[in-house]
Amino acid sequence: MAENGLAQREKVLTLESMNPFVKKVEYAVRGPIVTRAVQLEKELQQGVKKPFSEVIRANIGDAQAMGQKPITFLRQVSALCMCPELLTEANFPKDVKEKAQRLLAACGGQSVGAYSASPGIELIRQDVAQYIERRDGGIPASPENIFLSTGASDAIVTILKLLVSGEGRSRTGVMIPIPQYPLYSAALADLNAVQINYYLDEEKCWALDIGELRRALYRAREHCCPRALCIINPGNPTGQVQTRQCIEDVIRFAWEEQLFLLADEVYQDNVYAEGSHFHSFKKVLFEMGPKYSGSVELASFHSISKGFMGECGFRGGYMEVINMDPRVLQQLTKLVSVRLCPPVTGQVLLDVVVNPPQPGEPSYLQFSQEKQAVLSTLAKKARLTEGVLNQAPGIRCNPVQGAMYAFPQIQLPPLAVQEAEAQGQSPDMLFCLKLLEETGICVVPGSGFGQKEGTFHFRMTILPPLEKLEVMLQKVTEFHAKFTQEYSRGQLVGSGGSGGKSLKQAGL
Amino acid sequence: MAENGLAQREKVLTLESMNPFVKKVEYAVRGPIVTRAVQLEKELQQGVKKPFSEVIRANIGDAQAMGQKPITFLRQVSALCMCPELLTEANFPKDVKEKAQRLLAACGGQSVGAYSASPGIELIRQDVAQYIERRDGGIPASPENIFLSTGASDAIVTILKLLVSGEGRSRTGVMIPIPQYPLYSAALADLNAVQINYYLDEEKCWALDIGELRRALYRAREHCCPRALCIINPGNPTGQVQTRQCIEDVIRFAWEEQLFLLADEVYQDNVYAEGSHFHSFKKVLFEMGPKYSGSVELASFHSISKGFMGECGFRGGYMEVINMDPRVLQQLTKLVSVRLCPPVTGQVLLDVVVNPPQPGEPSYLQFSQEKQAVLSTLAKKARLTEGVLNQAPGIRCNPVQGAMYAFPQIQLPPLAVQEAEAQGQSPDMLFCLKLLEETGICVVPGSGFGQKEGTFHFRMTILPPLEKLEVMLQKVTEFHAKFTQEYSRGQLVGSGGSGGKSLKQAGL
Repeated sequence: MAENGLAQREKVLTLESMNPFVKKVEYAVRGPIVTRAVQLEKELQQGVKKPFSEVIRANIGDAQAMGQKPITFLRQVSALCMCPELLTEANFPKDVKEKAQRLLAACGGQSVGAYSASPGIELIRQDVAQYIERRDGGIPASPENIFLSTGASDAIVTILKLLVSGEGRSRTGVMIPIPQYPLYSAALADLNAVQINYYLDEEKCWALDIGELRRALYRAREHCCPRALCIINPGNPTGQVQTRQCIEDVIRFAWEEQLFLLADEVYQDNVYAEGSHFHSFKKVLFEMGPKYSGSVELASFHSISKGFMGECGFRGGYMEVINMDPRVLQQLTKLVSVRLCPPVTGQVLLDVVVNPPQPGEPSYLQFSQEKQAVLSTLAKKARLTEGVLNQAPGIRCNPVQGAMYAFPQIQLPPLAVQEAEAQGQSPDMLFCLKLLEETGICVVPGSGFGQKEGTFHFRMTILPPLEKLEVMLQKVTEFHAKFTQEYSRGQLVGSGGSGGKSLKQAGL
Repeated sequence: MAENGLAQREKVLTLESMNPFVKKVEYAVRGPIVTRAVQLEKELQQGVKKPFSEVIRANIGDAQAMGQKPITFLRQVSALCMCPELLTEANFPKDVKEKAQRLLAACGGQSVGAYSASPGIELIRQDVAQYIERRDGGIPASPENIFLSTGASDAIVTILKLLVSGEGRSRTGVMIPIPQYPLYSAALADLNAVQINYYLDEEKCWALDIGELRRALYRAREHCCPRALCIINPGNPTGQVQTRQCIEDVIRFAWEEQLFLLADEVYQDNVYAEGSHFHSFKKVLFEMGPKYSGSVELASFHSISKGFMGECGFRGGYMEVINMDPRVLQQLTKLVSVRLCPPVTGQVLLDVVVNPPQPGEPSYLQFSQEKQAVLSTLAKKARLTEGVLNQAPGIRCNPVQGAMYAFPQIQLPPLAVQEAEAQGQSPDMLFCLKLLEETGICVVPGSGFGQKEGTFHFRMTILPPLEKLEVMLQKVTEFHAKFTQEYSRGQLVGSGGSGGKSLKQAGL
C-alpha cells in the first residue's frame, strides 16, 4: 500500500472473496440478452437507426408490460384500501366498497401500512383456504397450512431452504425438470444443494416419464441425498399440462422413494388446449386415499403474477403445505417472521383474486367479462403461436396447452454452432442475440432453461397483443430461415428429440 | 412400515433432517411472546376474562398498527397509480395527479402490475439518488449504486449473502452491536456466518467505543475471518444517535482493519433529542477526503417502514452501495434479478417519500403539517418514556435520542432469576411474559437483542397514542415494583452496566 494511502487498496468484497455459491447462480430470464435489449431501447430513444422501431420483450411472463389491462375490480378494491377517503368520494360499486372495508378491518390499525402477521393476514389465509376447497371439490384446506408470500419465488426459495442440509454424499439433492424455470437452478446453486435433472419428453409433448424420474433419482443417489421433487404444471417454459394419470404416477413415485413434492402450480388458471385440464397435486393426492394423502409431503405454490390478472408488480402469492411435520411448520413460521411480512398490497390483491365478485353482485358481470376476455385471447395466442411456428422448416413447436410460453426447438446450422462455441457461447444464445439485433425481438435461449444435449430451443411468451404477436412470429420464422441459409454450408444439427443428432454425430 | 402403508411413515422433512442453520435462527421481535399476545387477543374476543381489556403491542415498530394515520399525499398518489381511472374521477389535487402520471409513465405498460427492472424502476432510482445528494449537501450519488428493495431487511440480507464465504478459520465474520436488531443474528445464523459481538456502552448512552470494536475484532480473528462491520444509527433497540466524531472513528477503524461497512440508517428521520443530529455514513466518509471516500466499501440501508410515514406494509426500501467492486456490483444485480423485482407499490410510495411536495405546490402545506405532527408527537413520546421510566426504582432508561424504542434496564430479584433459569428461560423473558399476562402489554425481552451478562432489559416502542403510552408506562413501572416485591427475599441482580452484579456475584 502506498504511504499516503491513496493507492488502490484491495477491496474487501471482490469476485474472488465473495460468496462462491452466489457466483454460480444464473438467471437467464433476466440475463445478458435482456441487458442488451434495454441498451437497444435506449439507443432507439436516442435516435440510433436500427432495422426495427421497437424492442418486443417476449422474454418474461409480464402480461401488463405487454399491454394487458388490469382487471377493474381488483384495482378498485386496491385503490380503496390504499386511500380509504375514497370510500365516500369515489363512484365505485357497492361490492367494491364492501370488499375494501372487510379487508381494511382485517389489517393492523385498519391500514395496509401496518405489518401483517408473518404468514399473512389471517382473514386472507382463510379466504385462500376456502378457494382451494372450492377448486378441489371440497377437500379440506386449513388456513394454518397457508403461507402468503412475496410472489411464488419467495415461497419456493423458503421451502428449498428448509430442505437443504448435509455435505458430501449426504448433501440434499432436488429433482427438477429439464427444461426448467431457472429460479430453481438459481436457488439450488445459492443454497449449495445438488440439482438433479430429469428430462421431459419433447417427443411426447413434454410429458413427464416415471422411468426417467427413476433413472435420474437412482443415478443421483450415488453422489447425494435426493429429498425433493419439483414439478411445474402447467409447464414453464414448456407449456404442457399434465394428465391426471401422470400426476398420480408422480405421487406414487414420491411415496415409494420418500420424496418431498414441490408443485409449482402458478399457471393453474392458464389452460387452453382442448381436452387439457388442470388437476392440482393436492386433489389427486387426496383422491388416492389415506395411504398417500396421510403421508406424502407436498408444498403447492400459486401467484397473482400469472393467471388472468397478471399482477406481477404486486409480488403476491401463497403456498399450501400438506403433511408437514408440525415442528417443521413451526420452523417455517419462524423463518418467514424474519422478513416480517409479505407486501400487504399484494396480500389484498390476492384476496380479491381468490374471493371474486359473485353472480348477482354489481361487479360480477364486468369482472367475468374481463377475466374471460383475457383467457380467451391467451388461448387464441397459444394456437396462433403453435400454428405459425410449426409451418416454418427447421422449427418444431409442441402445443401450448397452458401457461404463457412456447418453447420451440430450432435447427441450427453446424457453422453457427461452430461459431458460437468458438466464442464460448451457446449456439441458441448466438441465435437469440442475432434475432434481437436484427428484429428487436427479445426471447430467451433454451440453454437458459436446460435442454437435451445437441438440441436448441428458445422460450418466447405468447403475451404480445394478437396483431403484434402475429408479426413477431412471422419475423422470427423469417429470421430463422435467413439465419439458416447464411450459415448453411454443412449439415444441420439440433434436429432434436430422439431423432436428433448430437454435436458429435454432426462432426463438431 | 406396516403392510398396508397406513402406519406412520417417517417424514422426509423433520426437525432432525431440516436445514440446521435455519434451526439456529431466532427472531425475538416476533417470537413466543408475540404468539402469546395473539392468543390473549383471541381469548379476549371470545369473552375470556382478563385483568386488562386490550393487548397493547409495543413489541414492534409498526406505527400505523398503533393508530398513526397514513400521510395523505403518499396514499393519494398510490391510489391513483393503483387505479388510473381515478385520475379523471377523484377530486385530488393537481400535484397528486402529476406525480402519479409521472410514475405510471415509468412503469412497464404504464402499470404498477408489470414487473420493474430488478434493481427498481430507473426513474425512482434517479429520484433516490437526488434525495441522497440533497441530504448529504451535494455529495454525488449515482442511480447505478441504488438498489430498491423489499423493505430494508431484504437489502441487508442480500449484502450479507454476498459477503459470506469460507469454512473453519476463514469463515466470514460480521461484527454487530449488542444490543442488536435480531434480523442480523438471524441472517448470520441462516447464512452460517460468524456473529461477532461488540458491546455498546450503556453507561455512556449506548455509545460505540472503538476500543471495544478493536477488542471484539482481534479476538474474532483468532477463529474466523472478520470482513464486515454493521452499525445501526439511530440505534435499534437502543435509541441512541451517534455523534459525527464517532462515525469518523468507525470509518477510520474500518479503513485500518479492512472491513466492509453496513450502515443501517432506517431511522435517519427519527431524531428527537436536543443537540442530536443524524450524520449519514456516506457524508462523513466523503468529508474525510479521498483516502477514505475512495476506498472504504459501504452499504447504507433505508426504508419506508419507519420515518414519519411508517408504511411497513408496503415493504419498500433501498440501499446505496459505495466503492463496490464493479464485478461484485454485477453479481449483486444478477442476484436481485432472481427474485424479479421489489413490490412496485412499495417503490412508488418510496418515490413519493424521497420526492415530496415542494413549497408552492397544492399539497405542500398539508403534507408538511402531517409530517411535522408525526415527528413532534414522536419527540414528545420519547421524552415521556424516558421520564416516566427513570422515576421508577429499579428501572433505568437512557435518553431516547432517536428511532422509536426505549431499551430500559430493569433490576430483577434473584429469586425471579432463579425461577426463570430453573425453567430454562431467560429472566427478562419471565418478566415480559408475566407483564403480558397481567397487563396485556407486549414488550420484547432484552435477551432477544443481546445484553451484557447479568443485566436485564426489555424493548418497548414509543408508538402507542400519547394517552395510551402514558397509561402503559405507568402500568409497566407499577408491575415492575410489584414483581420486585413478590420475588424479593434476596439481593437484587441486574443493577446493570459497570456497577451491575453478575449472576455469580448474586450467588446464583
